[in-house]
Amino acid sequence: MNIEVQNILDFIAVAGVISFAISGALTAMDRKFDIFGVFIIAFATSVGGGTFRDIMIPHRDVFWLVDPIYAYVIMAGTVLTLIFRKRLCHLKKTLSLFDTIGLALYTIIGVQIGMQYDLPSVSIIAIGTITGSFGGVVRDILVNEVPLIFKKEIYATISIFGGSIYYGLIIFGFQGAWTELVSIAIIIILRLVVVKYELSFPNIYPEH
Amino acid sequence: MNIEVQNILDFIAVAGVISFAISGALTAMDRKFDIFGVFIIAFATSVGGGTFRDIMIPHRDVFWLVDPIYAYVIMAGTVLTLIFRKRLCHLKKTLSLFDTIGLALYTIIGVQIGMQYDLPSVSIIAIGTITGSFGGVVRDILVNEVPLIFKKEIYATISIFGGSIYYGLIIFGFQGAWTELVSIAIIIILRLVVVKYELSFPNIYPEH
Amino acid sequence: MNIEVQNILDFIAVAGVISFAISGALTAMDRKFDIFGVFIIAFATSVGGGTFRDIMIPHRDVFWLVDPIYAYVIMAGTVLTLIFRKRLCHLKKTLSLFDTIGLALYTIIGVQIGMQYDLPSVSIIAIGTITGSFGGVVRDILVNEVPLIFKKEIYATISIFGGSIYYGLIIFGFQGAWTELVSIAIIIILRLVVVKYELSFPNIYPEH
Repeated sequence: MNIEVQNILDFIAVAGVISFAISGALTAMDRKFDIFGVFIIAFATSVGGGTFRDIMIPHRDVFWLVDPIYAYVIMAGTVLTLIFRKRLCHLKKTLSLFDTIGLALYTIIGVQIGMQYDLPSVSIIAIGTITGSFGGVVRDILVNEVPLIFKKEIYATISIFGGSIYYGLIIFGFQGAWTELVSIAIIIILRLVVVKYELSFPNIYPEH
Repeated sequence: MNIEVQNILDFIAVAGVISFAISGALTAMDRKFDIFGVFIIAFATSVGGGTFRDIMIPHRDVFWLVDPIYAYVIMAGTVLTLIFRKRLCHLKKTLSLFDTIGLALYTIIGVQIGMQYDLPSVSIIAIGTITGSFGGVVRDILVNEVPLIFKKEIYATISIFGGSIYYGLIIFGFQGAWTELVSIAIIIILRLVVVKYELSFPNIYPEH
Repeated sequence: MNIEVQNILDFIAVAGVISFAISGALTAMDRKFDIFGVFIIAFATSVGGGTFRDIMIPHRDVFWLVDPIYAYVIMAGTVLTLIFRKRLCHLKKTLSLFDTIGLALYTIIGVQIGMQYDLPSVSIIAIGTITGSFGGVVRDILVNEVPLIFKKEIYATISIFGGSIYYGLIIFGFQGAWTELVSIAIIIILRLVVVKYELSFPNIYPEH
């Protein structure tokens, strides 16, 4: 891997951590958690997906345990969210935006890490989706709600779709930072379109 | 281990995955989740117990990450459940039956895997019970309910009992496919009897 | 490490297991779970934090899987709680006390284990906090409540504070059993004071 791509991946990982930290902090503030509860939810949302990915792969270090930068970035993201809370809080759209950015960034990182381990294709895509969406599931379980992922915004489906496109690009020999950036953009745009036009899968349940 | 037993174990593992996938899909359909939500719940229910078992044992691969057959079987099970949904959905009994079959199959697989790792007896039985019942716990947490395991149908107790019988048979030198099949049958029959006659542990809470 | 300190650490680990087992059993009894449900919740509360710690550290055995003493201690703690249930049940104070003792003991054990792995300081404190507080989070998720940790009793904050003091003492060269005992006492006293005087973080949400 050349240096440019590694730099892009490092940047993506840190940007994903911040996005999910903000998304977690906003959720906790919406529930009126105290300052510390806000930080814990931000932390769990932020590292949840990557932690689950890392403990499923034998011999792999949990990313935030061996590199303290992530903990500091999450602290900074939480403090920023608290400072700007009057402008951000209760804004469901802001939460959804940061959640979407985190989903896109983490999906690509997850696929990228999955590819290093000689796994079947379906497992590589699954690792991308778990990395991208599990943090949000943890957040929703911790505040005792049915996870957002199961509501009708086709959340994880977009992660699977975007992860597959990225994996396909790599398999077909494309390389360079733009493969990551294009895949991330596809996930973000798709999700924004789905949310804006309230698209959902066809209802499979007959009316009564 | 002779070839016959290994074949039986492989068959049991795949049958357990299908049973839990159907049980998860039925639960999600009962909550009116969209198609993709149904698949995710089916997947989590199906691999939950075995994934937890595999990440607790150092150096052990997570079974569905290294062998893509499981993901395909779960997809097939979900599609079948969706196709036959008009005949199956809302049928609490059907859910309970597949949940029971999955519990029995996964308990035996769990004990069998636990025995490969030179662990204390109590841990081998615990791994069987976790493998058998954790998928259902994950399913219930994801749809935000108190896990079925804690309701009065003596769910995990039967897993512990059946796992202990299987472990005992092996310890006392029995072998061959029938040891697995008898233990599985005992778990399924016991649970069906408990559900049919609504047996429960004696109430330990005095009336007020 | 000298023998005296190892003995103290073994004693702390077992005492922590009993405390969390009682705390889990009391919670389950408050929800009228049957005898077996009480044992499962006691078990999950008791081993939850340490299990999560052990699966996050590559190559590390899960403590209760390789040493059966913990399972037996949890069974004993559950039976004792059931026997004395008329004196203990519904007593929120008793639950809170055992939860506090478990938090203190497990935080110190967690920091102590984290230090064996050449991790950044922030990760060592995080492992202490996860070991101390995750069992209670598991307990609350299993009974389908917003985890106690997020309510206003500054729970995890005290774990972070106490863990940092213990880590600081070790870093500055202090040793001997009293470093553990003083740190544990600080956590317990701080939490009792917080609960008694109903201290909380300042409210960050403006009134409407």
